[in-house]
Amino acid sequence: MSDLNTILASIITSIRPSDTERHRLKTLAWRLIERINSIGKAEGLNANGILVGSSARGTWITGEHDLDIFIMFPPDVERQYLEEKGLYIARKIALEGDSLEERYAEHPYIHAVIDGFEVDLVPAFSVENAASIKSAVDRTPFHNKYVESRIRGLEDEVLLLKQFQKGIGVYGSELKTHGFSGYLVELLVIYYGSFEKVLKAACDWKFGISIDIEKHGIINHKDPLIMIDPTDPARNVAAALSLDNMCIFMDRACDFLKVPDGSYFHPGVGQPLGDKDLEYLISTRGTSLIAVEFEAPDEVEDVLFPQLYKLEDSCHEMLERNDFRVYNSGVWAKERAIVLYELESAKLPNVKKHTGPNVGTKEHASAFKSKYEHANKLSNVYICNGKYMVEIPRKYPCARKLVESEILKCGLGKHIGVSMKKKFNVMENLEILSVRDEGFRIFLRRFFDK
Amino acid sequence: MSDLNTILASIITSIRPSDTERHRLKTLAWRLIERINSIGKAEGLNANGILVGSSARGTWITGEHDLDIFIMFPPDVERQYLEEKGLYIARKIALEGDSLEERYAEHPYIHAVIDGFEVDLVPAFSVENAASIKSAVDRTPFHNKYVESRIRGLEDEVLLLKQFQKGIGVYGSELKTHGFSGYLVELLVIYYGSFEKVLKAACDWKFGISIDIEKHGIINHKDPLIMIDPTDPARNVAAALSLDNMCIFMDRACDFLKVPDGSYFHPGVGQPLGDKDLEYLISTRGTSLIAVEFEAPDEVEDVLFPQLYKLEDSCHEMLERNDFRVYNSGVWAKERAIVLYELESAKLPNVKKHTGPNVGTKEHASAFKSKYEHANKLSNVYICNGKYMVEIPRKYPCARKLVESEILKCGLGKHIGVSMKKKFNVMENLEILSVRDEGFRIFLRRFFDK
Repeated sequence: MSDLNTILASIITSIRPSDTERHRLKTLAWRLIERINSIGKAEGLNANGILVGSSARGTWITGEHDLDIFIMFPPDVERQYLEEKGLYIARKIALEGDSLEERYAEHPYIHAVIDGFEVDLVPAFSVENAASIKSAVDRTPFHNKYVESRIRGLEDEVLLLKQFQKGIGVYGSELKTHGFSGYLVELLVIYYGSFEKVLKAACDWKFGISIDIEKHGIINHKDPLIMIDPTDPARNVAAALSLDNMCIFMDRACDFLKVPDGSYFHPGVGQPLGDKDLEYLISTRGTSLIAVEFEAPDEVEDVLFPQLYKLEDSCHEMLERNDFRVYNSGVWAKERAIVLYELESAKLPNVKKHTGPNVGTKEHASAFKSKYEHANKLSNVYICNGKYMVEIPRKYPCARKLVESEILKCGLGKHIGVSMKKKFNVMENLEILSVRDEGFRIFLRRFFDK
Repeated sequence: MSDLNTILASIITSIRPSDTERHRLKTLAWRLIERINSIGKAEGLNANGILVGSSARGTWITGEHDLDIFIMFPPDVERQYLEEKGLYIARKIALEGDSLEERYAEHPYIHAVIDGFEVDLVPAFSVENAASIKSAVDRTPFHNKYVESRIRGLEDEVLLLKQFQKGIGVYGSELKTHGFSGYLVELLVIYYGSFEKVLKAACDWKFGISIDIEKHGIINHKDPLIMIDPTDPARNVAAALSLDNMCIFMDRACDFLKVPDGSYFHPGVGQPLGDKDLEYLISTRGTSLIAVEFEAPDEVEDVLFPQLYKLEDSCHEMLERNDFRVYNSGVWAKERAIVLYELESAKLPNVKKHTGPNVGTKEHASAFKSKYEHANKLSNVYICNGKYMVEIPRKYPCARKLVESEILKCGLGKHIGVSMKKKFNVMENLEILSVRDEGFRIFLRRFFDK
């Protein structure tokens, strides 16, 4: 057991950017902004560059060479104009770097690698205030302004909280993670005053707790954690945070304060699960595994993962609707995508109880009884708890057959739907060992260990 | 398809007592009443005999040689006096017959066989009105008086309705059956006017329907069918009727009126289930059978069956609480008593998900986490839907072991408890074939066929 301050001092030393790193980043940022402004001027475009995000606020963790540079246009230009001219400027700058890629959020932007930095060049509208944005990215400059003016002297606290959340796996508001965004971390530090105070407060959080720094909230949000955006009274900054990530943070915060330890700041890298391990797990647990595997569509994680989660949920519902009890499920993706279920049993009895209408509902009762008079059935129609019942052969006594036959009728996102309609495989128990990817094996380990 | 009236005419001929039978019954009844009155007079006891029940009202089905004779005492005598003197008179009379047995309802009475008739000699208080009874049997004379004065000319309708209900298995208010009592049948005929009209009405019954012939009901009953007792405004005559027996009656009433057929009046006697039949059923259905077998306590059905049903329910709950899904259950008793369950599966995985407290409940959370830190477990403690969870070895992955180990902790009635604590057997699947009793095999057939 080590002293809290000693641990924090050691962590902060390892994650705070050096003066050299700061200097390199600032120099590059100003050079790129200069280029935007001069291209704008030369081409007669009313556009200017600004630096936003953690690099602008001095709250980036060393080695994270990300630069977010916005190309701001007046709010009265057309969206098409902004996209066209914005991308023109961005591409022109990016071509002077090492590589370039067009990406899509609500509208397109350029991701480039320049001097070893990952640079996002994002066209945006320079609106009056955050409540009148025309596109989601437009609010970023307001966040930037709000945080910049309040974060001085608290940068280390932000770094510690970010690293702590990375260590326990709840950092990042991407749709794969549903964790804490960088902006949320900054607001928590501004509100509570320090890393340690945020953790202390989190120990006492109740589900649905609401923080409203500017005391201007106007909407009753239903999320587990509510942080009213200081720049937009109608918005919850923590809307993307899942209940379980909030809980993990609360849980680890308490534990860390009780027994501080540097390991909280380092994400554990699980060992890949070996073939023998899976054999052992299946025989000890006595459950059945069913996996659906297909080619992962070539999309960014923010597009791919919501579709994978949707598939996971709708196939889960289908399994339960067919009386298969799901103990655990999870998704994994690289070149291949896999949705994995652990079932109480992959086999069910051939007989299934089928419930009909209430006795006394004349037409429904007659229809039910005459339907099952000559149908293939395993009992007569009988009455139980005021309803007609009959025992019939189960359509899918075997989970594999159910998934193989019906999964394409589940709710499938656009890109996953296209991929699965081309081809998908259903694997059962040890067949899953045919997937040898180390990342998948690490996922498997966590699937069982938790 | 036969004509309704032809069918009813043929049925009524077969169930209406002949004049000879009526004469024999009346003669015996008056002889016994005379004896009660003369013994009373001779011994200076203020007691007199009356004939009650279906034999008094002319609504008994031919061959049912039952006589209910009450020995009435003034309401101001002590209960002990009534029991002592009442049994004295009853025993004296019964000793002149063929056999005698002391039985117990709310208080003791004598069951005797006299001249081939089954005679109940029941001491009762001759109270002012049915609302001021001192014992449940005291209301019978009021029922008798109410029905006698209204049933003239409707006796055949009562006989038809009773026989119809016997045929479909819903006649009898005993605690084994939870069906329609004779008094309820008579009131239905009085209210609706005929057998056919009762059936027509039943087709339109809704759950909770209330009939109040005297329009004097004072209590909101929660039963499926409510027939306010014309002699007691607080009582529901149909309180013992189960929802499913009410439903079976409604269902068969509709069907019979659509396609009248004599078979409704004849209870079907199922064929006993053979060994090969059970083998076939188990393999087709794919379910598992678990039976608990023990010596049936030597008690009347009204004592035994409520205890069997209680055992059936509490063991059912125990199975479900341990994640075994019960598809069907039933009880059977003769010299041996058997409670039978059909399970989705008698085996479950070794792993079981165990849910802990909500995250944020400090002491509970700590207690849960420290309890499972060193316990034998199959996963780490993790968080799911805001709660702590852990996967642990299941205590009873096998239903047979569960029942063998825990059934004595289930809710057991007094007499069944004594018997089971002496000895009970748990049987699985084909082991049940060791019970060769034909009645049990008929029960088994209905268990599956419904």
